[in-house]
Amino acid sequence: MIKAGIIGSTGYAGGELVRILSAHRDVEIKWFGSRSYIDQKYASVYQNMFQIVDAVCMDDNMEELANQVDVIFTATPQGLCASLVNEDILNKVKIVDLSADFRLKDVSVYEQWYKLEHKSPQYIKEAVYGLCEINREDVKKARLVANPGCYTTCSILTAYPLVKEGLIDPDTIIIDAKSGTSGAGRGAKVPNLYCEVNENIKAYGVATHRHTPEIEEQLGYAAGHPILINFTPHLVPMNRGILVTEYATLKKKADGTLPTYEEIKVAYDKYYANEKFVRVLDKDICPETKWVEGSNYVDVNFKIDERTGRIIMMGALDNLVKGAAGQAVQNMNLLFGLPETEGLELVPMIP
Amino acid sequence: MIKAGIIGSTGYAGGELVRILSAHRDVEIKWFGSRSYIDQKYASVYQNMFQIVDAVCMDDNMEELANQVDVIFTATPQGLCASLVNEDILNKVKIVDLSADFRLKDVSVYEQWYKLEHKSPQYIKEAVYGLCEINREDVKKARLVANPGCYTTCSILTAYPLVKEGLIDPDTIIIDAKSGTSGAGRGAKVPNLYCEVNENIKAYGVATHRHTPEIEEQLGYAAGHPILINFTPHLVPMNRGILVTEYATLKKKADGTLPTYEEIKVAYDKYYANEKFVRVLDKDICPETKWVEGSNYVDVNFKIDERTGRIIMMGALDNLVKGAAGQAVQNMNLLFGLPETEGLELVPMIP
Amino acid sequence: MIKAGIIGSTGYAGGELVRILSAHRDVEIKWFGSRSYIDQKYASVYQNMFQIVDAVCMDDNMEELANQVDVIFTATPQGLCASLVNEDILNKVKIVDLSADFRLKDVSVYEQWYKLEHKSPQYIKEAVYGLCEINREDVKKARLVANPGCYTTCSILTAYPLVKEGLIDPDTIIIDAKSGTSGAGRGAKVPNLYCEVNENIKAYGVATHRHTPEIEEQLGYAAGHPILINFTPHLVPMNRGILVTEYATLKKKADGTLPTYEEIKVAYDKYYANEKFVRVLDKDICPETKWVEGSNYVDVNFKIDERTGRIIMMGALDNLVKGAAGQAVQNMNLLFGLPETEGLELVPMIP
Amino acid sequence: MIKAGIIGSTGYAGGELVRILSAHRDVEIKWFGSRSYIDQKYASVYQNMFQIVDAVCMDDNMEELANQVDVIFTATPQGLCASLVNEDILNKVKIVDLSADFRLKDVSVYEQWYKLEHKSPQYIKEAVYGLCEINREDVKKARLVANPGCYTTCSILTAYPLVKEGLIDPDTIIIDAKSGTSGAGRGAKVPNLYCEVNENIKAYGVATHRHTPEIEEQLGYAAGHPILINFTPHLVPMNRGILVTEYATLKKKADGTLPTYEEIKVAYDKYYANEKFVRVLDKDICPETKWVEGSNYVDVNFKIDERTGRIIMMGALDNLVKGAAGQAVQNMNLLFGLPETEGLELVPMIP
Repeated sequence: MIKAGIIGSTGYAGGELVRILSAHRDVEIKWFGSRSYIDQKYASVYQNMFQIVDAVCMDDNMEELANQVDVIFTATPQGLCASLVNEDILNKVKIVDLSADFRLKDVSVYEQWYKLEHKSPQYIKEAVYGLCEINREDVKKARLVANPGCYTTCSILTAYPLVKEGLIDPDTIIIDAKSGTSGAGRGAKVPNLYCEVNENIKAYGVATHRHTPEIEEQLGYAAGHPILINFTPHLVPMNRGILVTEYATLKKKADGTLPTYEEIKVAYDKYYANEKFVRVLDKDICPETKWVEGSNYVDVNFKIDERTGRIIMMGALDNLVKGAAGQAVQNMNLLFGLPETEGLELVPMIP
Repeated sequence: MIKAGIIGSTGYAGGELVRILSAHRDVEIKWFGSRSYIDQKYASVYQNMFQIVDAVCMDDNMEELANQVDVIFTATPQGLCASLVNEDILNKVKIVDLSADFRLKDVSVYEQWYKLEHKSPQYIKEAVYGLCEINREDVKKARLVANPGCYTTCSILTAYPLVKEGLIDPDTIIIDAKSGTSGAGRGAKVPNLYCEVNENIKAYGVATHRHTPEIEEQLGYAAGHPILINFTPHLVPMNRGILVTEYATLKKKADGTLPTYEEIKVAYDKYYANEKFVRVLDKDICPETKWVEGSNYVDVNFKIDERTGRIIMMGALDNLVKGAAGQAVQNMNLLFGLPETEGLELVPMIP
Repeated sequence: MIKAGIIGSTGYAGGELVRILSAHRDVEIKWFGSRSYIDQKYASVYQNMFQIVDAVCMDDNMEELANQVDVIFTATPQGLCASLVNEDILNKVKIVDLSADFRLKDVSVYEQWYKLEHKSPQYIKEAVYGLCEINREDVKKARLVANPGCYTTCSILTAYPLVKEGLIDPDTIIIDAKSGTSGAGRGAKVPNLYCEVNENIKAYGVATHRHTPEIEEQLGYAAGHPILINFTPHLVPMNRGILVTEYATLKKKADGTLPTYEEIKVAYDKYYANEKFVRVLDKDICPETKWVEGSNYVDVNFKIDERTGRIIMMGALDNLVKGAAGQAVQNMNLLFGLPETEGLELVPMIP
Repeated sequence: MIKAGIIGSTGYAGGELVRILSAHRDVEIKWFGSRSYIDQKYASVYQNMFQIVDAVCMDDNMEELANQVDVIFTATPQGLCASLVNEDILNKVKIVDLSADFRLKDVSVYEQWYKLEHKSPQYIKEAVYGLCEINREDVKKARLVANPGCYTTCSILTAYPLVKEGLIDPDTIIIDAKSGTSGAGRGAKVPNLYCEVNENIKAYGVATHRHTPEIEEQLGYAAGHPILINFTPHLVPMNRGILVTEYATLKKKADGTLPTYEEIKVAYDKYYANEKFVRVLDKDICPETKWVEGSNYVDVNFKIDERTGRIIMMGALDNLVKGAAGQAVQNMNLLFGLPETEGLELVPMIP
């Protein structure tokens, strides 16, 4: 039985970790960390857990936690994990960090986009970027996993095969992303009130959103060189789900024609045919966030526009599952040698 | 491995049966019945099931189905199950009927409220009303289970202990119920369109809703005599969930005072303390549908109003789970001697 | 041109006052009070008002305001209006108070239900309860109008004719009310976040909600004696709208029979046939909040249940219009001798 | 008093025409056409109009209608207006066609994208494309106005100044559009059911949506040559509103640098500073659909991304107002020499 601790267990991603881990047969949650609710019953904060979780909320003492558990999940604001981690802790436990602290390899990029000083840059190099489908083998050997962002997971997996195979010009990539409101977190802020979000859609963080450099870095590895993209997130009146619509110019073949549907499909299948959690949909079926709700799936598909020579790629996932807690558990499974799908065979819920 | 067939597998309750059964370790779905989509891939109707369910939709040939499976679920409009069932079929398979055909013991009441001629009244007496918490022992021995309605399950379980213990006057019961829109089914009707339901609330079926006699019959058994109640359903702009708010006049004790909170609590605990799926919430916590979403729980609680001498009872469930498919699987578990909770330990999903 | 000042103009009721008054041809808003946003452009808080309102937000200096305007609307938390008003101010301007400060005639009832000391009880007697359809003549002569609550307006108008005419037993009234989320205000609180409200319904303030004594007082006047009722509010995932479902036992006629549909209808028509803003719907049509959205209408109707001898009354309004700002403007029209409907002929918006 | 007839008055755009025209002081609606509801009271279909509209629904006899009214609005499916219009009718009345029949100047493009034979191509040349801000003078003289599509109005107005002024490369334009569900119409179809749309977002009509050639034609006029763009619509769980996010590559200036914020702003102001219904928002404010709900405004803004050399343009409108009925009334005002804003000074409703 793996003993797990969660720092930040009363945020939405933390709550989702509790939901998934409490049904995982190899895991026992020993520590429900939540600075805001210390000493209160966890089930009084998340009443869905009444008679399921009996524990009270604890603080975020990572030193003490490292003595009690085998794996620590940090579902906390940027900066916290980096400020707490040290060699002693890393020698005792595995850490899956759901924040951005160890996602970007260049600390100056982190500090520029996040406006924060990084407190433990010495672990950045060691940390493994936990996009399981791409970095599976490295994750297995890691001490510290940087769990990817929700927009990022969706954006990268949707375009990865075409970038990797050189089928599109990566510098033409434009990502228009739409997210449910749980992505904004559980903080009490006016813009996240029901009446402000409901019956409304807006873009935000235009040309400045922090997930941009993360996408650029990872797709840059696939391209073999640094790339620049446009990424625009939007807030959608729904609880869960991310949909990305990605545009890129197809590279013409030697004979001057565009790649065919079948040629593109082969590229997707090369990378995803054996991936349980990435579903390449049938021709002309557009992904919908509802089809993956509550599950660890990413649904992807694409459409070629012969008129403009562009391809439109689409991807959908549940931002709290494959975009956060589900992927964190997938990483945990890899870290502890469990079947990668253990506890994650969640059937999407409709309606 | 229990082989199951579902007639009506592409309605919302049918789809939920598929979701639950496809994760149930003792069951294999052999027949995805759906007259509307015969020969189409099930996953093309419910794309969430892509790469999970590979079958195509079948017709509703119950004779043939009875040869192939151990249990048939009918998630179909009123009248269909009664028109198909016969002795030969009942000798071969167990039937869990999610329609109202066998819920009411008095066929004239059925025909009056449903405006339908009952095609097999000879099985009404035999059929067991599958409200597991109350009729558990009878269900175990049944051939034909009448799975209760969604409003009904919630309404009955919320008031049952107080009626049974004689703490309230059952003829003063007023049930004001609120339901998510999946309860209206998947038929293409203008009143169920997004723009008609969204940003709106209304009552419907006032003083005429068909679940009324079902509630009256079952609570009448608890009271020991026939009762009449008011039941008013409302349509709420959300996918899932039923909340009932029930009002009744408390019977005064011999000394002329009202029962106390503790005395009422004892009554609830007497019936539900050992029930996995009925959660009596802590004092002053009002049930919310979100806390049971996706799960088989019913959350109940109550508040005494000393000023008026009434008690306000509240109950919440997911209409597609405990109000339909979940309870149907709970009944199946009882029918086949499985642990009652098998496949039903679904953790409610928030947000 | 009437000069108006609004204290609390950036709350939802205040914002609605701005929307309505900015299209009112006899009114000019001179003061956009908002302690939270002093010196910020009003249109930067409510961007819908960009290029419509050019003013900046002001404080809540009622003394100064009284020198500049003809009418003050206070759309503020309980206690503020009572703490600011004085004889000097009342001699200069009319006040329409949207808070509860002057609604209850018995100051001890106010202090008990609101847990506040009343700072100017000397004006309670003078204040007119501004339910225009009932107290029209008194409003015309008032200096201080207590604008009714949203739940209250809907609850009272729905039952008023039957109580007044003695057709129902007022002590059997049970009001089950459902409100959109704008009724909870614009404060940044976790329970009002999008993800907490969306896909959820709950009761709250059960047996303790502050609008209860207000309804009891006003319906008690109609009954001719004090009454006690049950009132249960619910939070619904929609922006606007209140629906009340009210239950009461019909008084039997001398011959022992229940009143007929026509007899009840006559009573409603007696009070509302000439009321522009109260629409008694056609037989068997249930009110829906969507049908009054954005307008000053209250839609009411009823259904007799012969089986139980009860009547189910239903009423719907827009909580921000007839339940707050619209009614405040209706009161203002009365105070200044304008046509009562001026600026209020708002056509409900569908969808 | 202008006498108006509406063919298709019970669809969502038709209903919105009724809402707007019934508050327009120079117009009287004489004909509520609706083939689906002939002889039924209009207010029984749209209960919000109870006691406001007393008429019954009529057929779509345009010949007869032309004798009775001054202007006909056709809010009907593609093909109907083209099949009814003739010289006799056009000599008697003005027609504002809300369908696509006369929007595209090249009949073969119409027939290819709409899969319909055009029944009166002889009027295509005469018809004026009723995007008032651009074709105002031509509209004034027209007999037949082709009212632009909802996506189209938003897409064109958002990019128009930059295309016209040559600041962007028009062939790099990518339009990612998001629409509320009323845009899908009031037809009873499964994909438009509440439970299918709610808590979901999807793209549809990718690379094939019919508004594409309309945008290309109009922006092509601005560019001075034919252009090809990408247009991808998405369905959003909200009633009203369209948001477009448009991407294009900025043309570098002679010195090799990108245009500045101020230079772009000047271009927008050149075209829109005097336009009542187009609001260019302040720097860094992103348009939100909620801010224009119920009104005839289009809100636009932009953000330059120095990193990629692209500009992100954003626009928001209410698809039923400026995207349909509001613009139709604006065109009617122009046709009859009324102030262009008459009946359209609708204040956006929040929340």
